[in-house]
Amino acid sequence: MDAKATLKVGLLGLGTVGIGIAKILLDTQGRHPLLNSLEISQVGVRSHKPRAIDLPETIYTTDLKSIVTDPNIDIVIEVIGGLEPARSLILEAIDHGKHIVTANKAVISRYGEEIYEAATAAGVYVLIEAAVGGGIPVIAPLKQALSVNRIQAVMGIINGTTNYILTRMQTEGGDFEPILTDAQQLGYAEADPTADVDGLDAADKIAILAALAFGGRINRDDVYCEGIRNISAADITYAKNLGFVIKLLAIAKLPNAPAYKAQTSNRIQVRVHPTLVPTSHPLASINGVNNAVLVEGEPIGQVTFSGPGAGEGPTASAVVADLLSIAASLSTGQNPDPLLTCMHDHGLSIVPNSEVVTRLYVRLLVKDTSGVIGKLGTCFGKHDVSLESIVQIGTLKDLVELVVVTHEVPEGAFQNALADIRQFPEVVDVPSLLHVL
Amino acid sequence: MDAKATLKVGLLGLGTVGIGIAKILLDTQGRHPLLNSLEISQVGVRSHKPRAIDLPETIYTTDLKSIVTDPNIDIVIEVIGGLEPARSLILEAIDHGKHIVTANKAVISRYGEEIYEAATAAGVYVLIEAAVGGGIPVIAPLKQALSVNRIQAVMGIINGTTNYILTRMQTEGGDFEPILTDAQQLGYAEADPTADVDGLDAADKIAILAALAFGGRINRDDVYCEGIRNISAADITYAKNLGFVIKLLAIAKLPNAPAYKAQTSNRIQVRVHPTLVPTSHPLASINGVNNAVLVEGEPIGQVTFSGPGAGEGPTASAVVADLLSIAASLSTGQNPDPLLTCMHDHGLSIVPNSEVVTRLYVRLLVKDTSGVIGKLGTCFGKHDVSLESIVQIGTLKDLVELVVVTHEVPEGAFQNALADIRQFPEVVDVPSLLHVL
Repeated sequence: MDAKATLKVGLLGLGTVGIGIAKILLDTQGRHPLLNSLEISQVGVRSHKPRAIDLPETIYTTDLKSIVTDPNIDIVIEVIGGLEPARSLILEAIDHGKHIVTANKAVISRYGEEIYEAATAAGVYVLIEAAVGGGIPVIAPLKQALSVNRIQAVMGIINGTTNYILTRMQTEGGDFEPILTDAQQLGYAEADPTADVDGLDAADKIAILAALAFGGRINRDDVYCEGIRNISAADITYAKNLGFVIKLLAIAKLPNAPAYKAQTSNRIQVRVHPTLVPTSHPLASINGVNNAVLVEGEPIGQVTFSGPGAGEGPTASAVVADLLSIAASLSTGQNPDPLLTCMHDHGLSIVPNSEVVTRLYVRLLVKDTSGVIGKLGTCFGKHDVSLESIVQIGTLKDLVELVVVTHEVPEGAFQNALADIRQFPEVVDVPSLLHVL
Repeated sequence: MDAKATLKVGLLGLGTVGIGIAKILLDTQGRHPLLNSLEISQVGVRSHKPRAIDLPETIYTTDLKSIVTDPNIDIVIEVIGGLEPARSLILEAIDHGKHIVTANKAVISRYGEEIYEAATAAGVYVLIEAAVGGGIPVIAPLKQALSVNRIQAVMGIINGTTNYILTRMQTEGGDFEPILTDAQQLGYAEADPTADVDGLDAADKIAILAALAFGGRINRDDVYCEGIRNISAADITYAKNLGFVIKLLAIAKLPNAPAYKAQTSNRIQVRVHPTLVPTSHPLASINGVNNAVLVEGEPIGQVTFSGPGAGEGPTASAVVADLLSIAASLSTGQNPDPLLTCMHDHGLSIVPNSEVVTRLYVRLLVKDTSGVIGKLGTCFGKHDVSLESIVQIGTLKDLVELVVVTHEVPEGAFQNALADIRQFPEVVDVPSLLHVL
């Protein structure tokens, strides 16, 4: 790595985020003066067309490969998204000795190991602040300030679309489908909302956070992932009455508190699912498209980072922050900065859901016969599932709606109990089953 | 600056925070491996006595000066607090080429300029993450990731004691004095609570944040500072009815939105006062001893950092995070890292309160005569003070209690109107006047 007066930047992609990045770099007054050492020297685009940014025409190329192989370019920013050609371009840029800044959570969560190994071999940085939480600084604090702690958990609301939908369901009392449709019309949800509402985007991001927080490799395919399509207005109301809001949480944590001390285990929980969050919890008040990430460690306790999780300005801020870190490091000296490089020195295995110890919420529709609550309680007890409450929420003709909330129990034991309960002649339906924080 | 296999650390002070720091450095398993390059080589204490930590007896000295002048020591941690001898020891350590890590907001807010000039001349770092917000990473993000933005405002709840008291007043409906007494008995407030409840501690901290966020020197004595002694249970209730919670906010911001674009002005607002915060605002839900700092910038928007604002573990985490940054920088190369050094290149002047444009809340006790509301409205209007609401809150014998909330108005104009209003024969008392966010 060598210090130079000017660092030449190649920008792959000039969508919303790419334009936001260019705007910052073209107008540095009032920002960190080191940004003046960065110069956009090439911009890779799909086609030539008028742009919402004033860059010299000669800077554009549709030959993205020419950027990642250009010997004059020091840093490549990848903001085209998707798996390919993003992954191949990143790897080729690394092979050509370029530092990488990317917002691509899909590529990093799936090919992070391949990419970081190549980067370490080539002696270049791969920085990814923009991949999780938009503009909120969360990757850098995890690699730097928070890394003096033993991390016990990282969890958060890291998908803006689903948080927007759930917040509206909460405030309006509406159901999922009409609010999704409205969100699509307003531009808060994509035409194909699968990646967001089924939790896949959040799963990419928590896989990245888990790898950083616990310093190991995560197999993205092992991340348990459940979206918000089945959340009903009824569950939101019942949760509210019990003192909870429903949020799509992404959670990575050590299996249980004592284990972190020994650090003997390489097993962690990594999962995404709708979760009943107590209203007093720091994540309960994160509303709309905002994101938040909570980090719990020893001895720091819990710290939370929140703010806009997406959008031109916030995401561009994160990308340029990474550029600034690279520029600072290159101006400092010869050796790679150990707080910017990545340590994924061992594989981490993900605890199967059946072994996860968690609180659970289940809603049951049962025939209104005397003794049914006792029968349920007995069955849960037989499976060592300790209950916090069984509440009769309402009646529906001759049926009764019950909500059961457990204490912390192994999810497998709970599932066994529920399998028995589904066989009860009194049990007509189990409309919902949710995790409780 | 030179890289060494082991960096020797001199620790000034072994109170709660000092012990927390030593605990981390003595037990690095599961933390960033670079911490293994740090070694506590001397600990300066006031007297020899049994300690809650297992360090070799030979490491202790009561001669603090011998630590800051010891040629073997690379980094000095100052956690003795107070102005002297802390300031002199820091300066002498810098003169002897030592890097400094300190949690001392009183010294940095008053002598920051002198200390940073000495540090720049000596080519050493002075890192202060622990001085604001306990363990919450906020100084580093301001100097690094967020510095690519044009900062418009930094504000927060940065004193845990006052937030604890206000939270209890809010939830219990109690008055200030008895809750302060209880907080003192529980250890949440000091025997002499002045620095906390009168806002002095928060003023030290916001002076530091303002200097960092706006890259200039702040005169600590110019920071407007109003504590929470006069907050009554009545005001908390009235505020709640209007959709607010009362928080002690520390605020540093550019005078108004358009000014930041020109960056022509070196004038900023820096102030600490109880504030009515809308319940939907990110700072409204920060309760108990927790702290939070909100940073607003262009193009990032608003991001918030929250967590424990004090205590052994969190503060020690911040101090050791600074040690880690120094270790990383020294391992990287020869030149100082521009993201760790400090830029205070110009003086900033603080806008007088009369020129601050803000919303205000005032409670009035008036005689119950017809037309008094009209008369108040006319008077505010005459002074160009635009009102959001005048609400009759209650009656007290033949008196009526009114609460007035303004739109954003110059505080000077409001004070002029209020001076007139105090002369009205109908106005018996003005029990409270508070800022509104």
